[in-house]
Amino acid sequence: MMRLSTPDYSTIDQTHSFLANYGGGEANVAVALEHMGHRTFFMSKLPPNQLGDGAITHLHSHNVDTRYVVRGSTTIGIYFLETGFGGRPSKVIYNRKHSAITRINENEFNFEEIFKDATWFHLSGITLALGDRVRKVALRAAKEAHKYGVPVSFDFNYRSKLWTVEEARPVYKEIMKYVDIVFASFYDANTILEIPLDDDFSGTTLAEKRLNVFPKAMKKYNLTYIFGTDRVVYTATDNSLAGYYYTMKNGKLECELTDPIRFNIYDRIGGGDAFASGVIHGLLKDYKNPAYAVRYGLATSVLKHTIYGDASTFSCEDIETFMAANGSAEVVR
Amino acid sequence: MMRLSTPDYSTIDQTHSFLANYGGGEANVAVALEHMGHRTFFMSKLPPNQLGDGAITHLHSHNVDTRYVVRGSTTIGIYFLETGFGGRPSKVIYNRKHSAITRINENEFNFEEIFKDATWFHLSGITLALGDRVRKVALRAAKEAHKYGVPVSFDFNYRSKLWTVEEARPVYKEIMKYVDIVFASFYDANTILEIPLDDDFSGTTLAEKRLNVFPKAMKKYNLTYIFGTDRVVYTATDNSLAGYYYTMKNGKLECELTDPIRFNIYDRIGGGDAFASGVIHGLLKDYKNPAYAVRYGLATSVLKHTIYGDASTFSCEDIETFMAANGSAEVVR
Amino acid sequence: MMRLSTPDYSTIDQTHSFLANYGGGEANVAVALEHMGHRTFFMSKLPPNQLGDGAITHLHSHNVDTRYVVRGSTTIGIYFLETGFGGRPSKVIYNRKHSAITRINENEFNFEEIFKDATWFHLSGITLALGDRVRKVALRAAKEAHKYGVPVSFDFNYRSKLWTVEEARPVYKEIMKYVDIVFASFYDANTILEIPLDDDFSGTTLAEKRLNVFPKAMKKYNLTYIFGTDRVVYTATDNSLAGYYYTMKNGKLECELTDPIRFNIYDRIGGGDAFASGVIHGLLKDYKNPAYAVRYGLATSVLKHTIYGDASTFSCEDIETFMAANGSAEVVR
Amino acid sequence: MMRLSTPDYSTIDQTHSFLANYGGGEANVAVALEHMGHRTFFMSKLPPNQLGDGAITHLHSHNVDTRYVVRGSTTIGIYFLETGFGGRPSKVIYNRKHSAITRINENEFNFEEIFKDATWFHLSGITLALGDRVRKVALRAAKEAHKYGVPVSFDFNYRSKLWTVEEARPVYKEIMKYVDIVFASFYDANTILEIPLDDDFSGTTLAEKRLNVFPKAMKKYNLTYIFGTDRVVYTATDNSLAGYYYTMKNGKLECELTDPIRFNIYDRIGGGDAFASGVIHGLLKDYKNPAYAVRYGLATSVLKHTIYGDASTFSCEDIETFMAANGSAEVVR
Amino acid sequence: MMRLSTPDYSTIDQTHSFLANYGGGEANVAVALEHMGHRTFFMSKLPPNQLGDGAITHLHSHNVDTRYVVRGSTTIGIYFLETGFGGRPSKVIYNRKHSAITRINENEFNFEEIFKDATWFHLSGITLALGDRVRKVALRAAKEAHKYGVPVSFDFNYRSKLWTVEEARPVYKEIMKYVDIVFASFYDANTILEIPLDDDFSGTTLAEKRLNVFPKAMKKYNLTYIFGTDRVVYTATDNSLAGYYYTMKNGKLECELTDPIRFNIYDRIGGGDAFASGVIHGLLKDYKNPAYAVRYGLATSVLKHTIYGDASTFSCEDIETFMAANGSAEVVR
Amino acid sequence: MMRLSTPDYSTIDQTHSFLANYGGGEANVAVALEHMGHRTFFMSKLPPNQLGDGAITHLHSHNVDTRYVVRGSTTIGIYFLETGFGGRPSKVIYNRKHSAITRINENEFNFEEIFKDATWFHLSGITLALGDRVRKVALRAAKEAHKYGVPVSFDFNYRSKLWTVEEARPVYKEIMKYVDIVFASFYDANTILEIPLDDDFSGTTLAEKRLNVFPKAMKKYNLTYIFGTDRVVYTATDNSLAGYYYTMKNGKLECELTDPIRFNIYDRIGGGDAFASGVIHGLLKDYKNPAYAVRYGLATSVLKHTIYGDASTFSCEDIETFMAANGSAEVVR
Repeated sequence: MMRLSTPDYSTIDQTHSFLANYGGGEANVAVALEHMGHRTFFMSKLPPNQLGDGAITHLHSHNVDTRYVVRGSTTIGIYFLETGFGGRPSKVIYNRKHSAITRINENEFNFEEIFKDATWFHLSGITLALGDRVRKVALRAAKEAHKYGVPVSFDFNYRSKLWTVEEARPVYKEIMKYVDIVFASFYDANTILEIPLDDDFSGTTLAEKRLNVFPKAMKKYNLTYIFGTDRVVYTATDNSLAGYYYTMKNGKLECELTDPIRFNIYDRIGGGDAFASGVIHGLLKDYKNPAYAVRYGLATSVLKHTIYGDASTFSCEDIETFMAANGSAEVVR
Repeated sequence: MMRLSTPDYSTIDQTHSFLANYGGGEANVAVALEHMGHRTFFMSKLPPNQLGDGAITHLHSHNVDTRYVVRGSTTIGIYFLETGFGGRPSKVIYNRKHSAITRINENEFNFEEIFKDATWFHLSGITLALGDRVRKVALRAAKEAHKYGVPVSFDFNYRSKLWTVEEARPVYKEIMKYVDIVFASFYDANTILEIPLDDDFSGTTLAEKRLNVFPKAMKKYNLTYIFGTDRVVYTATDNSLAGYYYTMKNGKLECELTDPIRFNIYDRIGGGDAFASGVIHGLLKDYKNPAYAVRYGLATSVLKHTIYGDASTFSCEDIETFMAANGSAEVVR
Repeated sequence: MMRLSTPDYSTIDQTHSFLANYGGGEANVAVALEHMGHRTFFMSKLPPNQLGDGAITHLHSHNVDTRYVVRGSTTIGIYFLETGFGGRPSKVIYNRKHSAITRINENEFNFEEIFKDATWFHLSGITLALGDRVRKVALRAAKEAHKYGVPVSFDFNYRSKLWTVEEARPVYKEIMKYVDIVFASFYDANTILEIPLDDDFSGTTLAEKRLNVFPKAMKKYNLTYIFGTDRVVYTATDNSLAGYYYTMKNGKLECELTDPIRFNIYDRIGGGDAFASGVIHGLLKDYKNPAYAVRYGLATSVLKHTIYGDASTFSCEDIETFMAANGSAEVVR
Repeated sequence: MMRLSTPDYSTIDQTHSFLANYGGGEANVAVALEHMGHRTFFMSKLPPNQLGDGAITHLHSHNVDTRYVVRGSTTIGIYFLETGFGGRPSKVIYNRKHSAITRINENEFNFEEIFKDATWFHLSGITLALGDRVRKVALRAAKEAHKYGVPVSFDFNYRSKLWTVEEARPVYKEIMKYVDIVFASFYDANTILEIPLDDDFSGTTLAEKRLNVFPKAMKKYNLTYIFGTDRVVYTATDNSLAGYYYTMKNGKLECELTDPIRFNIYDRIGGGDAFASGVIHGLLKDYKNPAYAVRYGLATSVLKHTIYGDASTFSCEDIETFMAANGSAEVVR
Repeated sequence: MMRLSTPDYSTIDQTHSFLANYGGGEANVAVALEHMGHRTFFMSKLPPNQLGDGAITHLHSHNVDTRYVVRGSTTIGIYFLETGFGGRPSKVIYNRKHSAITRINENEFNFEEIFKDATWFHLSGITLALGDRVRKVALRAAKEAHKYGVPVSFDFNYRSKLWTVEEARPVYKEIMKYVDIVFASFYDANTILEIPLDDDFSGTTLAEKRLNVFPKAMKKYNLTYIFGTDRVVYTATDNSLAGYYYTMKNGKLECELTDPIRFNIYDRIGGGDAFASGVIHGLLKDYKNPAYAVRYGLATSVLKHTIYGDASTFSCEDIETFMAANGSAEVVR
Repeated sequence: MMRLSTPDYSTIDQTHSFLANYGGGEANVAVALEHMGHRTFFMSKLPPNQLGDGAITHLHSHNVDTRYVVRGSTTIGIYFLETGFGGRPSKVIYNRKHSAITRINENEFNFEEIFKDATWFHLSGITLALGDRVRKVALRAAKEAHKYGVPVSFDFNYRSKLWTVEEARPVYKEIMKYVDIVFASFYDANTILEIPLDDDFSGTTLAEKRLNVFPKAMKKYNLTYIFGTDRVVYTATDNSLAGYYYTMKNGKLECELTDPIRFNIYDRIGGGDAFASGVIHGLLKDYKNPAYAVRYGLATSVLKHTIYGDASTFSCEDIETFMAANGSAEVVR
C-alpha cells in the first residue's frame, strides 16, 4: 500500500507535495525481520504498473523476497496521512477500495511450496477487512501454515473505518482456529471474540480486565501467547508504551506488564507492526521466553517511532544497544 | 482531480515524494478564464473530506466560484504523472475509478439558476467517459445551456484508455446536438463522428483532410466554429503548435492555420485546456473574430507550457505582451 | 502583509531561502472564522502588483471575500521571522514602512455598504500604529460599525517597536469609544489606558491586578467583555496558555481564568489572533456565554500553534474534538 | 541588496518560498574579481540588523573586504525575481525605496584611505538612481578616485523604472568627467548623453550607429574605452551575446565586435556585471589590450549565466578553459 | 561507490547539500540488465558500515544479487560531481583512495560457483586502475570466466586521473587475453594497446582510423566485437551520440556507424555503462546480430541521459518504444 | 573537515541527500569567537581543490582569517552524521584517513609571525590523534605560543575510535607542559593523565572524584584553570548541561558546579567547542573571573545546540540575553 504523508507537519489543505512510501502490516513485519537478519517472503497482489513496481522496489530494497507477490489488476491501495503535531492528531484518509489485492485468488499461490520450509507466518487483521477474496486467501494461508506446523501469529488490528464489529466477528473467530500467537487488547478479546468478564468482576484497569478475560481466550482457542501494548498519548509526538504477554504454563497463567517507556515520536505509523516484529524475533530466538520477546518488541516499537516510514529498519545491534542503554542516547562516535 | 507528479524529472520508481496539484479539463478552463478577468463557476462533485477540501481550496485560490460543486461520496480521482525529459516521454497513470464524480446526480443541480444568466458553458470529452451518471448530467447540462441560449463549447479530448471508440461514438454524436463551438481534430470528426472523406479524396496532409471533412461536420451538427491545434513533438520538452479554425460564413468555408510557434515545455499538462480558454476569451471579446480567438488560444497554450500546474494563470496583459513580442522574452525590469 | 520565515529553524544568517506566507491580525481572524463556517470580508489596501496578488490569492484560498480590498500604491509590508528553537527565541524584523496600507483613504470605502448587514467588526491595535491615514480609516470604520449596531472587538496588540506608549495612548483611548469587546492585558489597561490600581492595592499577581483594574476600565469605556491569555514561555517551542474573561453582570463582576494548557509549538505567530477568532466564534454562537467563548478561543489558539502559518484553519469539528479530548492526540484512522 | 527569487521556475502567485541571495552591481563585480584573484573592497551602507549581516556574510564568503561598508539606518533593499522559462520572461519587482543606502553620507568615508593605494574603481548607473545622497557620494568617490589616478569604470545600466531620462541625464553627464572606461550602448550615448548621429547618417544596424556616435562620445568625455554587448533573446533561457569595444588609438578609431556565443541560461541576473568584471580583469592584466579584455568579459558573462546567483564565481582557469574550448563542455574527470 | 552531486546545477562552492546515490561501472551494467529482465550478480568489496549498507540497499532495490559482495575494510569510495549547465562542464572530484575495494582478495571468492552457470561477465577498465589487489582479482575473474566459456566484455574506460598510459598498458594488454567483446575507441586501440596505423595511412576522421586499426586489434586479441560511440558535445546538456560495431565475419570486416541521435541531458554520468548494457542485452538476445545490439545500446544510453542516477532503469518496453518512436516523446496517456 | 548529515532525522540507509557543512574543533572555536567580536586566525592544511575551497568559503563567511591555512595534498576529511531522534542516538562515521591535514608540515608555518601578537591559542585533542605530522605541528605550535606568552587552552576531546588510551597518553602528557587552561573530565585526568584518586577516597559522584584529582593535576602541570561540563542525556534531543571550573587561588582550591540547564537539541555537534568558545571569551574579558567564564561557556553551548552547524554563531548580545532570561524564549518583536 502506498502512503502519501504531508511533509513538515503541514495539513493536507496546506501541502503542495506528499512524501511517498510503501507499507502495510505484514510487509512492515517482513522488512523489520529482514533487518534483524531473517529471510522473509511476502505474499500479496500488486498492479503490473509503475506504482506496483514502486512497492516491489521498496520490498527489494529491504531484501524481502517477492516471489509470492502476484501482479495483476489495476490500482494500488493508497492512504493519505496528515502528520499531527503536539495537540493536533495525525489523520489517516483511506483510498484503498478496489485495489489490486482485493482481486487476489487462492489459486494464485502454491501453499505447499510456500509453507513447507517456513518457520513463521504472520497475518494482520486489517488484511481480513479487505473483502471476501482477500479474506478467503488469508484464512486458507493460515490454515495451510498451521497444517505444516508453522507457528502462526495474528495481530487483531481491528479498524472500525473498514468494517463493523458484527462483520468482523465471525472472521476473527474463524482465524483463531489456526493461530498460535495473538497480538490483542482487552477490547479485542472481550468485544470482538465475545469472551465475557466474570459476572462478579469488579476490576477497573485494563490490566485487571485482561487478567480476567485472556486466560479464557487462550483456553478456548488454544493460544500459546497473547502479546500487546498499553499506550499513553500525551501529545501526538509524546507517548509512552508498556508491553505485556500472557501465557498458560502447566495450566497456570504467567504474565507480565513491563515498565512503560516514554518517548518522542517522529513517525507514529507502524509502531504496532514493529512491536510484532520484535516479539516474533524474540520467539524465533527463544520460543519459551516471552519476557525477552516482549522487551524486544517494545524496544523495536519505540525505536520505530524515531524513524520515518512504516517499518522498523533497526539491526539487532541497534535494538539491543537501546535495550541496554535504558533510554540514553549519547552520540555514537 | 488530484495530480501527483514526480519532482525534478524523476521516475516513479525513483521518487520519494510527489508534487500535488488539482486540475481537470473544465476546472482548468475556469481557472484560466478567471485570470483573464471573467467570473466563472464550476460544476462537479467532490468528497466531503480533506482531499475534497484541497480541490476546493485550489479553485478558491483562483477565485472560481464553487457554489455548484456538490460534496458527497468518498474518493477523489487521482492520476500520477511521471514527468518526461528529452527523449523520455511523460507517463500518466490513472487512478480515477469510483471517484466521487461518478456518483453525481442530475437532481443535485438547479439548471435554471445555473444557466439563466450564464454567458458560456464549456465541457470536455473526458468527462463524458467517466460513467453513466456523469454522462447523463453532462448531456443534461449542455442541453439546458443550449435551451437558455448560452454558447456551448466542447473539447473532444477522446482518451482510448478510458473507453473505446465504439462506446464513445453515440455519446459524442448526442452531445453534438447542443454544441456551438467544437475543439476537434480530423480524427475526431472522421473516426468518432464518422464523417467520411470524399470518395475521390487524394490529399495527404491533416490540413487537407480537415478541409474535406470539417465543412460536412459543421453542416450536419450546425456548428459555428471548429478550433484545434497541430502539435509537433521534437522532444518531451521541445514542441511546436499551430492553431486552426474553421467556420461557415454565408455558406462558404472560412479557415486558417496559423504559423507554428516552437517552444520549451516546463509542464505539458493542460496545454489543450489553455488553448480552449484563450479561444473562449477571444470569442467572448468578439464572437465574430475567430482569427483573433485562435491566436489568443495559441498564445495562452504556449504560455501555459512554461508554468507548473494544469491551468493557465496568465493575465490578458501577459498573453497580449507575448502575442506582441513574437517570442522574445527579455527580463521585465 | 508578507511573512518570510527561515525554514528548518535556521537563522537568517544561515538560510538560503525563506518560506513565504501572508498574514496580519485582522486577516488571520477572517481566515480562522471562514474555517469555522462564517462568511468574512477583509478591508485593506494592497499594491496592484504580483505581491499584492499573492496576498489576494491567500485570502481567496481561504474564501475570504476581498471586495473591500483596495488596490493601489507600490509596496507590500514584509516582515522576516527567524524561527526560534528551544532556548533560542524567534526574532521578528519588520520592513513595513511605506507599505501600500499606509496610503489608505477613507473615501476608498463605502461604510454603509460594508456595515449595514455585518454581524461583527474586528480590529487590531497593530493597524493603529501604521500611520495617520490608516489610523483615520480604522477609527472611522469602528465608529461606523458602532453606529450600525455591529459588535466591535479590538485587540490591543501594542508593539513598542512601532510606536511609543505616549504616541499610542490617545489613539487607544479614542478607539475605546466604539468598542464592545476588548482583548487586553493588565499592562494595556493600566499603562496604556492609564486606569490606576487602587492606592491601597497590595496584590502581586497579574490576576489580582486585573481584578482591581478591569472593572474600572469596563465601566469607563462601557465595555461588554475583556478577554485575554496568560502565557508561560518554558522554551521557544514549549509554552502554556490560560484564558480569561471579565464582564459586569447586573453591576457585579463576573470573571474566570481557565486552567492552563501546556503545548508544543510548531509556529508561534498568530496565536493571539486565533484566540480572538475562537472567542468571536463563541460569542457569535452565544453572546451571553463568555465561559464558552474563552474556552473556544483557548482551544483555537493552542491548535493554531501546531500548524504553519499565521492563521488557524481548523474547523469547528477539529476544535471541539480538541476541547473534548483533553489534549489526547491519538491517530484518527 | 537582497534578491528573493521564485524557485523551480514558479510564478510569484504559485510559490510558497523564495530563494534568497545578495547582489548589486558593484558587489557582483567585486565578488567576480575576488574569484579571479584580485583583492577587492566594497563601499556601501547596510542596516545594522540580521539582514545587513546576511549581506556582509555574503561578501565575506567571497572574501570581499567590507571595511568600507557603513552600518546604519533600518531597511535593506529587496527585489523579487519571478524566474522566466522559455517564452515567459523573468520579471523583477523592486522594493528598494528608503533602504539603508539612501541614507549614505559623504563624511562616512575616508576617501584618501580608500583610494590612495587602489588600482581600480567601478560604479554602476543603478547606484546613481538611488537618490540624492547616494548620488552625491558616488560622484564624490568617482572624483576622488580620478584625483588619485585610479582608473574609473562606469556601467550605464539605465533603468527606466527608477528614473526618467530627463532626471538621469545631468547625472550621467556629470559622472562622465571622472570616468575612463564606460560600459554603454548606442542608446546610452545617443539618448542619455545626447551625442547625435550625423545628419547624413543612413546606417540601420546598432553597430553602424555606434560607429557614428561612440567616437564623438569618447572625444567629448576623454574616454579610453567603451565596452558593451549585443544580446539576442531567443527565449528566456536561450540567448546569444557578442561583445564590442571602441577606443581611439593615435586619433584613429579601433573597434571590434566579436562573434556571438549562443548559450543556455540558468540565471540571467548579473550577466552585465560579469561582463564588466571580465573586462576589468583583462585590462588589469594588460591595459592596452581591449581585444583580450572584451573576450574575457564575454566568456565571464556567458559562464555567469550558467550558475545561480548575481555574481560570477569563476576562477581564471575556468574562464580561460571556456575561452579555449569553443563552447565544448565534456565532463572534466 | 558513492556519488555526491550538487543539486539544481549549483557549484560545489555554492551548495549546502549533496544528492547521494551509488554507482560504478559494473554495478550500473548489472542494474540496467536487471531492468531488462536479466538476473545479475555483483562482485565487489564494501565496508561493513552504514555506507556499505547503503550501497547494498541500492543494489537490492534494483534486485541485483549481492551474494558475491564481500564486506570488509573501513571506507567507501566517494566522488563528488559538480553538475554542469550549458557551457559550464560538469566536474568530477575523486575521493576513492584506500576504499574498501582496494583491500579485495582473490581468496574471498569461489570462482567456480560464480562462473559455472553464468552467461556473461562484464568488466570496466576503471576497476583495473584501483590498485594491485583489485587488478589481480579482476584479471583472475576474467580468466576464470573465460575458462568456463562465459563471454567476457570489457569497457576500456581509461581515466588519466587514475593512472598513466604507461602504467595501464600492460594491464590492458593482459586482460585482452580473456576478452571477447570490447568497448573501445581509436585512442584505446592505438595508444593503449599500441596497434599502429598503417605507415601509408592518410585518413583524417576517427571512423577512418578505426577502420585501419580495429581489424588488427581484433585479430591480435581474437576479439569477436568492438563496440563504441562517437559523442559530440554541443553543450553540457546537449550532446549527440552515434554507435558503432566492428567484427570479422569469415575473415572479412563488417562494421557500421549508426546515424547520430541528438538529445538533452539530465544526468550525463553512466552513459557509457548504459551503452554497454544495451549492447550486452542485444547480444544475449542474438549474439550474431551486432547491428541490433549497437542500436539497443545507443537507445539505452540516450535514455539513460534523461534520468538521474548512474544506471539505466529502463525496461525493454521503454527502450524498444524509444527505438520505434524515432525520438518523438508525446505524453503516454 | 566536511560534515555530511542526513536531513530530517533520516537514517543513512534511507537518505537520498546529505546536508553539507564544515567544522572541526579549532575552526568551530574560531567561528564562535568571531561572532563574539574577536579577530581569529585558523591554522590547518586543506586540499587545493573545490572541497578545500568550500572549507575556506565557510571560514571566510564567518570572517575567520585563513592566511595560515596551507593548501596541499588531495583529500579532505569527511565524516557522516546520522542525526538521531528521541531514543535513537546520532551516529558518526569517520572517513578522514589520509586527509590533507595529515600531510601538514612544521616548516609550512612561520610561528613567530603567528604568535608574536596573538592573544590566545586553542587546541583540541582530536587534532593530536590525526597522525605523527599533525601531532608534531600541534605540539610545536603550543610550545611556540607558550614561549611568546600567549595563553594556551586545550580541550581533551579524547576519541577512542581514533586511538587507544595507551597511544594517546604520552602525547597528552607532553602537551600539558605548554598549556594554561584545560577542558577536561575526571576520566581525562584520572585515566589519560594517570592522576590517581587518593587511596582512601570513598566518594561516588563525578564531582567528588574531580575534587580529589583535579588539584593534583593543576599542581603537576601548573594549570591555571580546568573547565568542563556534566551532561545528562535524557533523549537524543533532550539533554541537560552544568558547567564547572577549578582553579588554585593562593594555594587553595576554588571551584564551582553551576546549576544544570535542561534544553532541546536541534544539532548536538559542536556543543563542547561552543562551551570552550564562551569560556575563552569570558576569560579574554576578565581572566580572573572563571565564574563568569563558565556561565558564558554554558550559555554559548546551550544556544549552539539550538542551531544547525558545528559552530556557535551567536553574538554577545544573544548570549547575554539568554543568560539574563533564565531560559525564557518569548518572540523578540
